[in-house]
Parts: sequence; structure tokens; C-alpha cells
Amino acid sequence: MSPEFITIQAPALTRFADSILRGAGVPARTARLVADTLVAANLRGVDSHGVQLLIWYCEQIAARNVDVLRAGHIASENGACMLYDGDNGIGQLISDTCCDHAIRLAKDHGIGMVVARNSTHFGAAAWWAQKLAREGFIGMVMCNATALVAPWQGRDKMLGTNPICMAVPGPRTFLLDMATTTVALNRVFKAVLSGEKSIPAGWAMDAEGNPTTDPQTALAGLPMPLGGYKGSGLAVMVEILCAVLSGGAMLTNVGGIRVKDIPMSASQMFLAIDAARFMPLDEFSRRMQFVRETVKSSRPASGYDEVLIAGDPEWRSEEARLRDGIPVSQGIWKELTALAGRLKVAVPVVANG
Amino acid sequence: MSPEFITIQAPALTRFADSILRGAGVPARTARLVADTLVAANLRGVDSHGVQLLIWYCEQIAARNVDVLRAGHIASENGACMLYDGDNGIGQLISDTCCDHAIRLAKDHGIGMVVARNSTHFGAAAWWAQKLAREGFIGMVMCNATALVAPWQGRDKMLGTNPICMAVPGPRTFLLDMATTTVALNRVFKAVLSGEKSIPAGWAMDAEGNPTTDPQTALAGLPMPLGGYKGSGLAVMVEILCAVLSGGAMLTNVGGIRVKDIPMSASQMFLAIDAARFMPLDEFSRRMQFVRETVKSSRPASGYDEVLIAGDPEWRSEEARLRDGIPVSQGIWKELTALAGRLKVAVPVVANG
Repeated sequence: MSPEFITIQAPALTRFADSILRGAGVPARTARLVADTLVAANLRGVDSHGVQLLIWYCEQIAARNVDVLRAGHIASENGACMLYDGDNGIGQLISDTCCDHAIRLAKDHGIGMVVARNSTHFGAAAWWAQKLAREGFIGMVMCNATALVAPWQGRDKMLGTNPICMAVPGPRTFLLDMATTTVALNRVFKAVLSGEKSIPAGWAMDAEGNPTTDPQTALAGLPMPLGGYKGSGLAVMVEILCAVLSGGAMLTNVGGIRVKDIPMSASQMFLAIDAARFMPLDEFSRRMQFVRETVKSSRPASGYDEVLIAGDPEWRSEEARLRDGIPVSQGIWKELTALAGRLKVAVPVVANG
Repeated sequence: MSPEFITIQAPALTRFADSILRGAGVPARTARLVADTLVAANLRGVDSHGVQLLIWYCEQIAARNVDVLRAGHIASENGACMLYDGDNGIGQLISDTCCDHAIRLAKDHGIGMVVARNSTHFGAAAWWAQKLAREGFIGMVMCNATALVAPWQGRDKMLGTNPICMAVPGPRTFLLDMATTTVALNRVFKAVLSGEKSIPAGWAMDAEGNPTTDPQTALAGLPMPLGGYKGSGLAVMVEILCAVLSGGAMLTNVGGIRVKDIPMSASQMFLAIDAARFMPLDEFSRRMQFVRETVKSSRPASGYDEVLIAGDPEWRSEEARLRDGIPVSQGIWKELTALAGRLKVAVPVVANG
């Protein structure tokens, strides 16, 4: 492992994250839930949604934008549809509750749709879609987010990176979790935090809409909507299914983990579909396996060794990092240990630390 | 209007399409439905899904891949979920029926999800999402299609252009209908049919995966998945929600309007969400208007005059073409008149015809 990174095993990192959260005043059960979601993202290689988020989570708690003691409440329930108000509690606790309701509604109706408002950052969407999938449902999860993306043909930040996520029950065949920008903005933040000198072309534009590969310019500029106008269309679709329907903050009225003067007031959508209403679950899984194997049987395009399906890179990372430990950049580790120091939390011993 | 195009008013084009379909043996009510859906696409400027499809629809009927006399049947209904078997009937008739069921289920449960198998080409997805929206529901429609797209990093055609479509109830604020490729493949066919010399960069690759702007090379090559791996992920998501769930043909087992030896066996998904279960519909519409106006208020990026929202280009086209008539390329018009001749159907008099 490069000396630019420390290395830590997942259980130790989870305990550390858990301690930091408890140090910040988060109740034990919630602290463990949040720690689990963050380290799961690190294991999957999605470091942008891993423990580095603790830095901003703790700032949000200190700024009282997140109320660690509130869990939210049901605003309305009507057939298969529920509206949940998160009361600015911790996003992961709100999301865990919303998933449970979506599962209950899907057991009753075949589909359950829960839309949350006044929620806060819930980590990676994949955790929640996977929770729905583990219970036997096709899980679809979306959320709106801080307005950091200009609509296509525009230059003012109006939309979040508004991700679309889908997981399926059964063996590992497919797991989609994608921002509707070319890349999630946290990857640009991570590049800056880690001191990287450039980012790939197509990730971002400067403030006037010109392409850039400089991380600092990109951070001050605009992320690129996926494929141009279609990415913008998908981002608005997510905004509708989450924030228009929730009655919560929309577009530029959403705060964010790096916004200190207002609560995040994010909206999130949790959709559970009972595949068993269409066919037995084992048949569904066999058909998923057929899709997986067929797609992966394609001859690689020139320049590639194999065809990957959504989820593959993350499952490979998870296997490797469960075995070899999780690399955390020295820059992020320094911030985490400083945070731990302020909260009087012990820092674990790590390789290259 | 350029002499490369004939011009015809929508009612006359609808009557002509209707006559051709009846001439091909389609029952009157269904012929009119199909004609309406095709001309609606022409009006919206989506000529790839307009009357040019009649050429292939009639071939499919003649090849007995489409049974004009069958309407399909309910395979199962369970809570808010319905599985519909189209029995290889006309896709528009099947879709019309499925939308009615989705609306009925959404009235009962708040959400209705109908998945059809053994369906055939249903025209533009937007027609069906708009039908759901006209009845007061958020409409989401997806379908799988002929395997013409290689998965990202692959070179074998495994996936369809698998569109994602969403319409909302109330005044015109947002209407998304997008292939999960950079552009719908029919736009490449149209470029070839219309004798265009080049297509924009980024639309397609040659058979080995190298970018091309030549329409013929593109037609023989591979359409580009939207934004690379994310477009492939979305296409597989659509394949799951349509074809895995339907029990119908998947991936390379799907036929197509240009495939003569097997029925198309497409799968389609119709999701109706009752926004009124979350808030009064007029509040929903006000919130949609806020999203629309906020996004459109963005300063344009350099090189652009204004920000467009999904649906804008098509509504503008519809207004202009309702007034000025619909342009049809001479190449397509020649094929349609030849088809009409074979079916002994009168050809309307048109400008530049």
C-alpha cells in the first residue's frame, strides 16, 4: 500500500467511527448504524461516502443542523404511499425507519413507497437499496442534495448530484448506485483532500462551463451532468420523486453537509417492489443470473479485458479490503485524528499511521 | 420548408396512417390508436417514432410477428402488481390496456405497476406516460428492445436502447423520454433513410468500439451508452424492471421491428403513482411549477441562449407543427406512398409531394 495511505481493518475503523459519533453526542444504536454505513462504503471502494463524511457530519451536529436525538415521524400514510418527516434527525436513522416502512407497505400491497422530507445526509444510497433487497424486495432509492450542478445549458447551480440506486434480492448479480452527474461530486472533494493534481476530462466544468481537469477549478466550478441534457433530465426526475412529492426543500433551498447556516432538509425516496408478486423469487434470481452471465459474456471492446456489470467493481473492492484492510488517505486520516482529539476519542493504531 | 421534405397537416397524416393500418388488417379502433400515437410523436418532433414506423409495423404484421386480432390477457394480479401477457398483439393496444390497469391499481393502492411480456413495439414511451399523467398520476414507463447496444467495455450487442420515461399530472412542466444511449437508435436509422452525410460525434461507435460520425458505419456499429458505464447500468435497470420481472424475452432473445423471423416479445413497464396520496394535486402542480421556473431561471452557459427543461423542445415542436404542418423526409414519404400503393390505400395530396 502506498505511504500516501494508512491502512486499517474494517472492524477497527467501524469502532473508531462509532466512537467519534458517540463522542459527538450520537446515541449508541444510531452511532453504530452510521458507522456501519460509512465503513461499508469504504469497503466497497466508494471512499467519497466513507468515513471522511464524519468530518462534515460532526460539523453539522455541532452547528445544530442535525438533531441527534430525533428520529422523525410519519406525516401521512395512504395505501402503499407514506410521507415521513425526518425532523432534521440523523439521515441514516431516518432512512432505516423509512426502509422498514417501505418493506411493511410492500408486504401489504406488493409495492411500498416512502418519501422523506427534512432528512439529512444518509451516506451511500446503496446501503438502503441493499437493505430492501436483503428483505426480498427490489429496492430503489433516490435523494436530492445540495445544489451544486447547473442544469444543462445553464451556469447556475440548481440541482444536486441526485443519485439513482437499485438493488435486487438474491445472490449478487446487479447493484446500481450512480449520481446523475458524470461522477459523484465527493470524488472531486476527495481528489482535493488527497492532494491529487488532476481529475479525468469530462468530470467537471469551470464556472463558465468550460471543461477542466484541475481539481480546485472543478471544485469551484460545475460538475458535468451525465451525458448532458439527459443527465439533467434524470436529476429533475429524482428531484420530483423525492422533493416535489415530499413537500420538503427543493433545489437551491436544500442545505448540505458543507452548509452551516441551515439544516440540510434533504428529501429521500425509498421504493420496495415485491418481485414475488410477479414470479417465485428463485425464478427471479435465475433470470437475474441469466442477465448477468449474458451481459458478461460479451467480447470486450478494444482496450478492455472484460465486461463489468454494475456492482462488480464494488464487490471486488469489498473482498480485497475485507482481507487487506481499508486504505484511508493521510490527508483524511489527519483530519479524522484531529477530530478524535477534539472529541477526546482514542485513535486506533494503523499501518503507515 | 426544405424541398427535402413534404409537408402535411396532422389530421391528414393521421387519416393516412389510419388507412394504411386498416389496409394492413388492423381493426378500426386499434388502427386509430396507433395512428394517433405515431402522429403525436411527429408533432413532438420525435420523427424517429413517427409515421416512418408504419413501414416496419406493416412488415411485422405481414410476417405474422404481430397478431392484429389479439389484445393480450392478464397473466396475474397481486396487490398493486399486475403481469400482463400481450400475446404478440399490437403494442399500442396492449399498452393502452396496461395503462388502464395501472390507473385502476393506483386508484386502489396509491401505486399501480403493470409489467407486460410478449408485447410488441409501442411507439414513443411518452404517449403512455402522458396517458397516465392525464388521469392524474405520475407516469413512469420503460421498455426493453432489440439488442443493439453493447454493454460498456463490450463489443457484442446485448442491450436495447431501453428508454426511461416520466410524465407528471397538471400543466406542462416536465416530460422526460430518453433512451439510455446517447441518442435513440432510430435517429441513426432516420439519418440513413434521409440520406444525411454525418451524425454528431458521441452518438455511436463502429463495430470495434471506435467513435464514428458516418451514419452507415454507425448503423453497422454500436450506439454509445449514455455517459459510458452509467448508461449501461440504467439499461440493465430497465431490463430488470421490464423483462426480468415480466418473465418474457430478455436481452438477445428480444426480436424487433426489423427482425422478421421471430415475434418482438418486448417487455414494458407501466408505473402509476398517485401524487395526491402525498399532497393535494394543485399543491403538487405549484411545486412542479417552482422547479420548472427555478431551473429555467439559471443564467445560460456560454454558447447558449436559455435553459431548457425536459419536454420543452417537444412542446415547441408540437406548437409549430400543429400550425405549420409536419415535415416528412422525401425518402420516408416515398416508402410510405409505396406501402400505401401495395395496400391499395389513397395517398393524400401534400406540399412538395
